Amino acid sequence: LEAQAQQDTPDEATPEIGIIMGSDSDLDVMAGSEAGRPGAYDVLTEELGFEEQTDYDDPPESRFTFETFVVSAHRTPGLMYTYAETAADRGLDVIIAGAGGKSADLPNMTASIAYPLPVIGVPVQEKSLPSVIGMPQGAPIVAVDAGKSFNAALSAVQILARQHEDLRDRLVSYHEGLQDGVGDVSRDLHELGTPEFKSQRD
Amino acid sequence: LEAQAQQDTPDEATPEIGIIMGSDSDLDVMAGSEAGRPGAYDVLTEELGFEEQTDYDDPPESRFTFETFVVSAHRTPGLMYTYAETAADRGLDVIIAGAGGKSADLPNMTASIAYPLPVIGVPVQEKSLPSVIGMPQGAPIVAVDAGKSFNAALSAVQILARQHEDLRDRLVSYHEGLQDGVGDVSRDLHELGTPEFKSQRD
Amino acid sequence: LEAQAQQDTPDEATPEIGIIMGSDSDLDVMAGSEAGRPGAYDVLTEELGFEEQTDYDDPPESRFTFETFVVSAHRTPGLMYTYAETAADRGLDVIIAGAGGKSADLPNMTASIAYPLPVIGVPVQEKSLPSVIGMPQGAPIVAVDAGKSFNAALSAVQILARQHEDLRDRLVSYHEGLQDGVGDVSRDLHELGTPEFKSQRD
Amino acid sequence: LEAQAQQDTPDEATPEIGIIMGSDSDLDVMAGSEAGRPGAYDVLTEELGFEEQTDYDDPPESRFTFETFVVSAHRTPGLMYTYAETAADRGLDVIIAGAGGKSADLPNMTASIAYPLPVIGVPVQEKSLPSVIGMPQGAPIVAVDAGKSFNAALSAVQILARQHEDLRDRLVSYHEGLQDGVGDVSRDLHELGTPEFKSQRD
Amino acid sequence: LEAQAQQDTPDEATPEIGIIMGSDSDLDVMAGSEAGRPGAYDVLTEELGFEEQTDYDDPPESRFTFETFVVSAHRTPGLMYTYAETAADRGLDVIIAGAGGKSADLPNMTASIAYPLPVIGVPVQEKSLPSVIGMPQGAPIVAVDAGKSFNAALSAVQILARQHEDLRDRLVSYHEGLQDGVGDVSRDLHELGTPEFKSQRD
Amino acid sequence: LEAQAQQDTPDEATPEIGIIMGSDSDLDVMAGSEAGRPGAYDVLTEELGFEEQTDYDDPPESRFTFETFVVSAHRTPGLMYTYAETAADRGLDVIIAGAGGKSADLPNMTASIAYPLPVIGVPVQEKSLPSVIGMPQGAPIVAVDAGKSFNAALSAVQILARQHEDLRDRLVSYHEGLQDGVGDVSRDLHELGTPEFKSQRD
Amino acid sequence: LEAQAQQDTPDEATPEIGIIMGSDSDLDVMAGSEAGRPGAYDVLTEELGFEEQTDYDDPPESRFTFETFVVSAHRTPGLMYTYAETAADRGLDVIIAGAGGKSADLPNMTASIAYPLPVIGVPVQEKSLPSVIGMPQGAPIVAVDAGKSFNAALSAVQILARQHEDLRDRLVSYHEGLQDGVGDVSRDLHELGTPEFKSQRD
Amino acid sequence: LEAQAQQDTPDEATPEIGIIMGSDSDLDVMAGSEAGRPGAYDVLTEELGFEEQTDYDDPPESRFTFETFVVSAHRTPGLMYTYAETAADRGLDVIIAGAGGKSADLPNMTASIAYPLPVIGVPVQEKSLPSVIGMPQGAPIVAVDAGKSFNAALSAVQILARQHEDLRDRLVSYHEGLQDGVGDVSRDLHELGTPEFKSQRD
Repeated sequence: LEAQAQQDTPDEATPEIGIIMGSDSDLDVMAGSEAGRPGAYDVLTEELGFEEQTDYDDPPESRFTFETFVVSAHRTPGLMYTYAETAADRGLDVIIAGAGGKSADLPNMTASIAYPLPVIGVPVQEKSLPSVIGMPQGAPIVAVDAGKSFNAALSAVQILARQHEDLRDRLVSYHEGLQDGVGDVSRDLHELGTPEFKSQRD
Repeated sequence: LEAQAQQDTPDEATPEIGIIMGSDSDLDVMAGSEAGRPGAYDVLTEELGFEEQTDYDDPPESRFTFETFVVSAHRTPGLMYTYAETAADRGLDVIIAGAGGKSADLPNMTASIAYPLPVIGVPVQEKSLPSVIGMPQGAPIVAVDAGKSFNAALSAVQILARQHEDLRDRLVSYHEGLQDGVGDVSRDLHELGTPEFKSQRD
Repeated sequence: LEAQAQQDTPDEATPEIGIIMGSDSDLDVMAGSEAGRPGAYDVLTEELGFEEQTDYDDPPESRFTFETFVVSAHRTPGLMYTYAETAADRGLDVIIAGAGGKSADLPNMTASIAYPLPVIGVPVQEKSLPSVIGMPQGAPIVAVDAGKSFNAALSAVQILARQHEDLRDRLVSYHEGLQDGVGDVSRDLHELGTPEFKSQRD
Repeated sequence: LEAQAQQDTPDEATPEIGIIMGSDSDLDVMAGSEAGRPGAYDVLTEELGFEEQTDYDDPPESRFTFETFVVSAHRTPGLMYTYAETAADRGLDVIIAGAGGKSADLPNMTASIAYPLPVIGVPVQEKSLPSVIGMPQGAPIVAVDAGKSFNAALSAVQILARQHEDLRDRLVSYHEGLQDGVGDVSRDLHELGTPEFKSQRD
Repeated sequence: LEAQAQQDTPDEATPEIGIIMGSDSDLDVMAGSEAGRPGAYDVLTEELGFEEQTDYDDPPESRFTFETFVVSAHRTPGLMYTYAETAADRGLDVIIAGAGGKSADLPNMTASIAYPLPVIGVPVQEKSLPSVIGMPQGAPIVAVDAGKSFNAALSAVQILARQHEDLRDRLVSYHEGLQDGVGDVSRDLHELGTPEFKSQRD
Repeated sequence: LEAQAQQDTPDEATPEIGIIMGSDSDLDVMAGSEAGRPGAYDVLTEELGFEEQTDYDDPPESRFTFETFVVSAHRTPGLMYTYAETAADRGLDVIIAGAGGKSADLPNMTASIAYPLPVIGVPVQEKSLPSVIGMPQGAPIVAVDAGKSFNAALSAVQILARQHEDLRDRLVSYHEGLQDGVGDVSRDLHELGTPEFKSQRD
Repeated sequence: LEAQAQQDTPDEATPEIGIIMGSDSDLDVMAGSEAGRPGAYDVLTEELGFEEQTDYDDPPESRFTFETFVVSAHRTPGLMYTYAETAADRGLDVIIAGAGGKSADLPNMTASIAYPLPVIGVPVQEKSLPSVIGMPQGAPIVAVDAGKSFNAALSAVQILARQHEDLRDRLVSYHEGLQDGVGDVSRDLHELGTPEFKSQRD
Repeated sequence: LEAQAQQDTPDEATPEIGIIMGSDSDLDVMAGSEAGRPGAYDVLTEELGFEEQTDYDDPPESRFTFETFVVSAHRTPGLMYTYAETAADRGLDVIIAGAGGKSADLPNMTASIAYPLPVIGVPVQEKSLPSVIGMPQGAPIVAVDAGKSFNAALSAVQILARQHEDLRDRLVSYHEGLQDGVGDVSRDLHELGTPEFKSQRD
């Protein structure tokens, strides 16, 4: 598996964002799920025009792409090391790293090894938050709230948008839609009154 | 004061990073203090070659600068609104926003209003962390650990370094110094033995 | 939507109480639900003789009314600002503001902007309590326990009852019914004995 | 002591606000202290023009007054009962009740007995907060953050200000002073720069 | 209802243990439930030979009895006051008082008023524990773990057993049965082996 | 040491209360200290007329006595076992057992072994509370709040007072003194006013 | 039952690992369950070649074995004492001891009595962790995370593997299988892409 | 520094125990300090006859030795990797790894990489405990309580004592001294009485 990671290195049309997680049981949180709430995969593909890159020899058409891997800090430390160390050379600009449990070391170790590439940590569970965010002085990571890979993806694109005006516009456009939605709900609730609004909603 | 913020807007040689905090009692955490641990001011000026910009008509010579303001979400909501709304037009690229207490709303409200500008929240106290990081879906913020404005500054420069190779080199050079320091301590402790190392340290 | 809020301003027969919440997903807590426990809407309309005002040109007949809005601090900061700033001029006497999540900023920001109008904060979730109540010195808010919009409505009417003897009587009358209910249950449990009481209850 | 409380009842020039606390060791938090932070006594007398009433036969000249008592829920339950039950008849409009420890029952029991008089609970310690705020449905109390009798006094006056335009003006005037103070600090910090601001402050 | 409590006073064949709770929704915890775990009612009647007394004019035959009431500290403070104050005169020896929520004041207030009668507090929920146990110096209460009215009843009988050798024997006999049960399970698990033990259990 | 404990057994004039603690570093909490707050030793000897028994062949004159031992559950499990098993035979009526740390097993193990003798657990530190109170069903212990050996002693005497009218009177007399003290402070604070009261206190 | 434990003592072909738990309700955690996650029984028998020993006169063929008992610290303190004291003589090398609740004393007391035999504590519930791990200085225990008897078994075998090269090889072989599994999942997720991977998984 | 670690590899007279920590600021906890409590260094050298090995070419005379290093997971991930990977080959039998902060990753990562060598994690601060102990299934670590490197050293020697009867005797002898000490204190306290014991102690 390490060989595969290194073989990726000399690739041209590389993804901007790398999404990694400690276990495939984190996938519903990190990508989003139909039963639960939407996640990084959903907002990137549905709102911001990204595509997932699955084959380095055959990149997707979209200008902006991301890739997804399972990397376990405690069960596959060697794979984690290789992924983080080669990330910059493989063309990544931001890594979104999620892990669950109380010893959620993947985001932190990745941030330490991939430095100075920015890493956004996603605590997959509430109890993972202290472990993800508590880095010592000199070893930077930034984190989002537990379970919010959706916002991590927005933050990752905010970072990329420093260079790409195009992405900035998509972020603004997404936000305007969000605000219109809240405004519509507010007007409906007020004008219909609470009981009528409720019965229409259900 | 609002007038001053707006008058700033058409300025050319603008700071890259805006550092704001809820009260000047947060300054020891947000800038760093001699008695306590170093902060954002220290790492920016001493390790990464930034200068603080205090007069918009007379910017410092350094290519990279930052500015510092006190803005209170609960006591001066209007000032906060103005600062966040004009931030992008005033040329800022990243905002580092710190607040203390259990209702540490400044980073969050700033992130919501200044969006899509990236905002790095610094919980000034441990108890401020949940309030800073707990944003709802669609309203992104990234946060560092409580009290670690030092790391927030590193993260801010990691974001800027996407565009500025120069900053990337400074980050790497800072990190190498850090690693050499740990290595030296490790060798001393091992070779001197615990009692001798302790007596030399004290 | 801001226009609508301002157009409301010159209205005569205005509501005494404004109920706002961060999302319509908070409605079951803020208004009350059939499946869960009763809320502000229930106690105001069923126990204290208030009516919900949904059309400013066609106010309800009741002397005492309230209105309901969805206002998100993080997704619609502008709407929140406008609502809070115009609240006193629009004739409101008390605001009940509820929000969920760990960054429950809506009650606090509303209290800061609508000051000196009293604002009663309702943490929609247990984890929202620290964020709602933790205001700094000089920025007052009062809060009720997590999820208890029912009690927030009682407290709001306690405030209004300083001026309206009528409301004071309704509060007393509600309380007497409550005490009679507890007394009846106590007598039944004691006289029937535990097993018989249980079997009658189920 | 109960006799004294009842003898108070037929008094004319009565205080608007009653401040009670579980022990005189709570006085530094409830009134404010020179070593620690200011409290209810300080803001009422220095910012809002209240006077403390100590002799019912010889009320102070000020239109608005308050009184201060020590009442222990667990050590003097009878005294608490009497105080709360006679509060409305003695002319009080709002009670500010503070208690420390994990079983901070004084505010809650006072709110239950003095109902429908509004009671503002002040948790004297952080650990008192759950006990103060956790009232069951139908038994309202409002609370401020732990230790913030200062804000409780502001909130009490916000309630009184519904009837007294005069008090509303004093609240606004206090707030403007507060905002000017933050504004001055912000300008100084920005224009002087961090190091110069710090050296002037110390 | 107060009248009823006082009329009880001159009764002869009085119960030894008084069980009170803040709401009849606490009954499953305080008495025990078939779906959940057993409680005070179960252990008193099934293991220790007590009977519940429901009519003061017609006491049960058993030498040892208990009574059950719902008494709400926050909704019926007067009833609580009367119950606690008359408890000793009504012949009670120990009170078991349970309450839920974060302001679980019933056990504490009862202990303060009924003093020096011993009161055993039962936090009905985990979050009620701090409020129940946190009494100030000089105001004693003893508490059991959250939800464990079963153990509270054992403790109450341990207190009574100081005077009644008979009860001491019943406690010992209950305990021997308990130990035999654990011993049997241990032997079965060991001798059958884990898989066989599991399949027999299910 | 075990020999010493058994030699104690056939003693006549035995102490009613046994006070044990996990380490002599717990003594300031369990007995009381001049620098900190008073404890079990203080209230027993100064308020309730007990004497400490130190020599089984030469008991003190007082009718009611107590003894004090250090017994460590984790470092001297054998001593603990012997102490608890012989406690009833040695004439003890109640045991007050205190322990610190997160694994505060002494009170629990003593309660399990000395059963059916009542044991009052004193968590010496706040973090010891869960371990002391969390006994499983069928293994009773009662606990007081962390650090409050003072209240544990009052509760122990409440248990003894079921049989000894004399002790009941002493408890009541102690309480009356306590209430008078609170009443005096309340009157002073009210009549002197806050500033004058404070200056007299300091 | 104590007799049985002692009768075990002179046995020859003894188990290396003793697994004890406070109640048979802990068995799903301590052994593993089909509905929940696997546990000590599962990893020992399926991955590491151990067999469970249920009859001391007829030991299993495997070189490495373990035994399983229910031992309750609070309900059967005598049994616990006997088990721990005879453990070394009975030929055990490591004990894995699990307990639930907030007073999870079994692992700690066993570690204290069986010392210097190594004991690995398993907190059966999250809330049992502080009680299990919080031993005072001089009374060692090591603990694994709440509920993870699986890892406790691995750790026990790591200890045994100091002497048995054979066990070391089995541990390595188990780990390689684990790493291959993560690697396969990672490759599948990356090459299939998130939606395809999800649909194949479900 | 990595070179140095590898050069160590072919060494003969190797240490049994490796003590590593994240920073030299952890040294007071990990080794022990005169001002605070004793630690691993103290118990190994003073009670159990170990010596610290500081020069691989000139090992100490003692049969049992340990070594001490500073290794930071977040600041020197490469050094950590090398240390853990070469540990078994360098002849270590147990590693004691301590780290502070909320992201205390050093013990966990070391356990993952050095597997199947047993690693005992020491959370240097209370807040480090969840991160140290919370390993996922399949990645074993054992942990001691926060700050207790003293007990970690005892546990490490318990593991070594499986093979070395000599160490077993030293552990027993240390424990007997400990028990005698507690016994002496207990007798003194009991025979002198609380006040006399206290005055002799101070």
